[in-house]
Amino acid sequence: MPLKEGDTVVIWIDPKRIYLVRLEKGKKFGSDKGSIDLSQLEGLEYGSSITLSTGSKAYLLKPTPLDAYNGLRRPSQVLYPKDISYMIYVSGIKEGDKVVEAGTGSGFLTISLAYVVGDKGKVITYDIREDMQEVAKRNISFMGLQSRVDFKIKDIREGIDETDVDAIFLDMPDPWKTIPHAYSSLKPSGSILIFVPTVNQVEKSVLQMRQFDFVDIHAEELIVREYQVKENATRPKNIGVVHTGFIIRARKSIKGS
Amino acid sequence: MPLKEGDTVVIWIDPKRIYLVRLEKGKKFGSDKGSIDLSQLEGLEYGSSITLSTGSKAYLLKPTPLDAYNGLRRPSQVLYPKDISYMIYVSGIKEGDKVVEAGTGSGFLTISLAYVVGDKGKVITYDIREDMQEVAKRNISFMGLQSRVDFKIKDIREGIDETDVDAIFLDMPDPWKTIPHAYSSLKPSGSILIFVPTVNQVEKSVLQMRQFDFVDIHAEELIVREYQVKENATRPKNIGVVHTGFIIRARKSIKGS
Amino acid sequence: MPLKEGDTVVIWIDPKRIYLVRLEKGKKFGSDKGSIDLSQLEGLEYGSSITLSTGSKAYLLKPTPLDAYNGLRRPSQVLYPKDISYMIYVSGIKEGDKVVEAGTGSGFLTISLAYVVGDKGKVITYDIREDMQEVAKRNISFMGLQSRVDFKIKDIREGIDETDVDAIFLDMPDPWKTIPHAYSSLKPSGSILIFVPTVNQVEKSVLQMRQFDFVDIHAEELIVREYQVKENATRPKNIGVVHTGFIIRARKSIKGS
Amino acid sequence: MPLKEGDTVVIWIDPKRIYLVRLEKGKKFGSDKGSIDLSQLEGLEYGSSITLSTGSKAYLLKPTPLDAYNGLRRPSQVLYPKDISYMIYVSGIKEGDKVVEAGTGSGFLTISLAYVVGDKGKVITYDIREDMQEVAKRNISFMGLQSRVDFKIKDIREGIDETDVDAIFLDMPDPWKTIPHAYSSLKPSGSILIFVPTVNQVEKSVLQMRQFDFVDIHAEELIVREYQVKENATRPKNIGVVHTGFIIRARKSIKGS
Repeated sequence: MPLKEGDTVVIWIDPKRIYLVRLEKGKKFGSDKGSIDLSQLEGLEYGSSITLSTGSKAYLLKPTPLDAYNGLRRPSQVLYPKDISYMIYVSGIKEGDKVVEAGTGSGFLTISLAYVVGDKGKVITYDIREDMQEVAKRNISFMGLQSRVDFKIKDIREGIDETDVDAIFLDMPDPWKTIPHAYSSLKPSGSILIFVPTVNQVEKSVLQMRQFDFVDIHAEELIVREYQVKENATRPKNIGVVHTGFIIRARKSIKGS
Repeated sequence: MPLKEGDTVVIWIDPKRIYLVRLEKGKKFGSDKGSIDLSQLEGLEYGSSITLSTGSKAYLLKPTPLDAYNGLRRPSQVLYPKDISYMIYVSGIKEGDKVVEAGTGSGFLTISLAYVVGDKGKVITYDIREDMQEVAKRNISFMGLQSRVDFKIKDIREGIDETDVDAIFLDMPDPWKTIPHAYSSLKPSGSILIFVPTVNQVEKSVLQMRQFDFVDIHAEELIVREYQVKENATRPKNIGVVHTGFIIRARKSIKGS
Repeated sequence: MPLKEGDTVVIWIDPKRIYLVRLEKGKKFGSDKGSIDLSQLEGLEYGSSITLSTGSKAYLLKPTPLDAYNGLRRPSQVLYPKDISYMIYVSGIKEGDKVVEAGTGSGFLTISLAYVVGDKGKVITYDIREDMQEVAKRNISFMGLQSRVDFKIKDIREGIDETDVDAIFLDMPDPWKTIPHAYSSLKPSGSILIFVPTVNQVEKSVLQMRQFDFVDIHAEELIVREYQVKENATRPKNIGVVHTGFIIRARKSIKGS
Repeated sequence: MPLKEGDTVVIWIDPKRIYLVRLEKGKKFGSDKGSIDLSQLEGLEYGSSITLSTGSKAYLLKPTPLDAYNGLRRPSQVLYPKDISYMIYVSGIKEGDKVVEAGTGSGFLTISLAYVVGDKGKVITYDIREDMQEVAKRNISFMGLQSRVDFKIKDIREGIDETDVDAIFLDMPDPWKTIPHAYSSLKPSGSILIFVPTVNQVEKSVLQMRQFDFVDIHAEELIVREYQVKENATRPKNIGVVHTGFIIRARKSIKGS
């Protein structure tokens, strides 16, 4: 399908130059590698190569949540793709699910969650900072996912309004204060996922979880190494991110027989 | 919703004792930690705790792809959850997508892909070994995902029948032989994901990709560390998996303007 | 120089079969891969290949501290070579130095320290368990290093007898209780090295160090990955040690100008 | 012992400001954190704190090879302490040993080797670039180790002059070309240690070693993670070195019985 006005597209120049833009009449895309009138892109397909004003090559790609991570504005520290992907997978969430998340931050986890739950699902995202949620709203709209997300300005440590929730994702400094509310809010067998940067937060969160009927509790860390591939000279890259944070996961149980 | 005959359920006893069973009249679940008549589980909810014949506690959980990994039969080496989750996330696949995969193996990547593409999507899985695909079929049926999967006994190195495919996942010894077919089969901007255990395979695959119009090519490795949480004595676990394999990813581009 | 009675030698069969033996008349070496009369080895050189009773090949190697690690008895958990090597290097110890260590354990760190300080140096090793020190004594004698080591049965948390010490190595559950004594005992600019398995111990130790005039304080972890090299199929080994512990290091400062 | 003219001392201000200086009359030490007349330091002891012109505190430490790494000039890429320490430990070298090394580079491995072999030992270091060896000579003199080192401008791939060598350390692009010479030059049971950045070099080196009577061949990689310790907020540092290179080690065997 040819691209048309209003479509969001990734302009991929190289691994450090990835931009998300919306096709609008009269608008121009500009970068240090060259510019192009966005209206010129209409009629092309996702996947097409283009030539910028400087002669540099670029590619129009169809936006994924990873592109949102690379190409949108991030005023706050955001979760890394390696962590988001694992949290989503182990949570077992899928199309149609109802998911609660806090804090909204720049909205990157929100985008990934909304991408998964589909049009019949819903992501309810809590934050205490209205200015941050404004950035997140713009980012999420950019990805065309706004109808799947409910925004709330509320301190989730004081309670979760929703019940019968499939999964809860917490990326906040003191998640242990939300664990009791998360237990009440979750569907039995529903998943809780917590992301924290320090080991002390891991310990506090897990010890708090053990006070409730959570089972299948795990604390894990994911490390990603990127490789530089050259004929006869392949090796891991030298410098990189060595730590982002820890992922804690568990599922709610209830009294049965 | 109460569990009823025919439902698949996880019996979770401890991290090393996770079983997937289907509720059938007259059938009994047995383990070294005790047994229970499966018909007794009908009427309970997912999430419920139960008591086995020995007095041991167990939990009935709602199956996720991760549970399939832990609880089903694996006659062949299978992809690890840490790798599957990242491959799915970076591929950008979502509900409704058409995805090609080879080889089928025990069907664990298939299950995860089918879980994501939903009822409107389709996973086409190639393998050259019919006996392996039989195991995979049973595993996939167990998860109730058989309607989303087409099985093919065919050597994918000789060609891919499908076109306009959203993503292709290759877990095979010589993926470079399939890269030309993958390029033809993919939709523009579609993703190719390759998993290989050795660095030499990484080099060959990436060099081959560069012969075609693939962009955004990356080779990465994911390492997971599990933590043991104890009050005042938290640390990474001592022994674990230090290597599974490398993930290569790219997207198809075409000539544009 | 040809081997003679009384010499200690490594019998290296394969990476999992490494033995330290002393050449004694009438003694026989035995393993599941075959046996040999030790007196037959006299007159051979270090480095020589030999043939065991079964026809299996073995090699006579000159013992290093790493061979002690692989080939001697280890009734208690011992420090890993990767950790010992780094601790020694960053401590700056060298021939002629006076070094204090606790606890003795099976004596492997002791062996490595004694190897470095040479005949003019001295290692003073503390432990509260006499039975453990007996094993350590035998191990250290086996390496011919007994003259470089003083053994003490004493709780180092109650004080260190030695002063003007070049470096102190602590491998014990509550090293923070020894830090004040270590400060008094060390030469100015001398190094303290601590090894602990949990993050909580790291935190406690470092916070305690900061109460004293220690500078250049670091907490680090070393991870080793072993590679399996095969033509065209090289990769990290699959299973391994993912965690041993953390190394904390610092140097003593005093008031100057 | 009080510091006197001609002594080398570490001026340690903070982990990113570590300087090696030699006390000389009329010379001044300067940094962005302040300056001090070096003659003022005479009479102080190693370990003493001092106050710079700006009021900033600094510490006078006794130089170790690690300080040389942090505080001397490095015109070329140098081996990391984590790698050097492990290579030295597993090699089994000790005081009095004769060690061959190539290439000299900036001389940091040379310094560490010379530190270990002591006054009765000798390090023979080969390089093809005279300008590089000049830098190395200055660095080694700074550490007062020049009498333990012989410098050679020679291509080690064309042969090693020394025989009966205890260990050989190779940090060069094509070490496999030196392996046959290394075999001839080593004492039986002597160690060869190779450092290379790419996996392809690992494979070539190990395959070449297997053509000779080397035993106990291992290829390993060391990863170091630094931790940031704060009360109740301890975690690995976020960004760091994820790869330096691979260490290959083996010992020479000869025909025995």
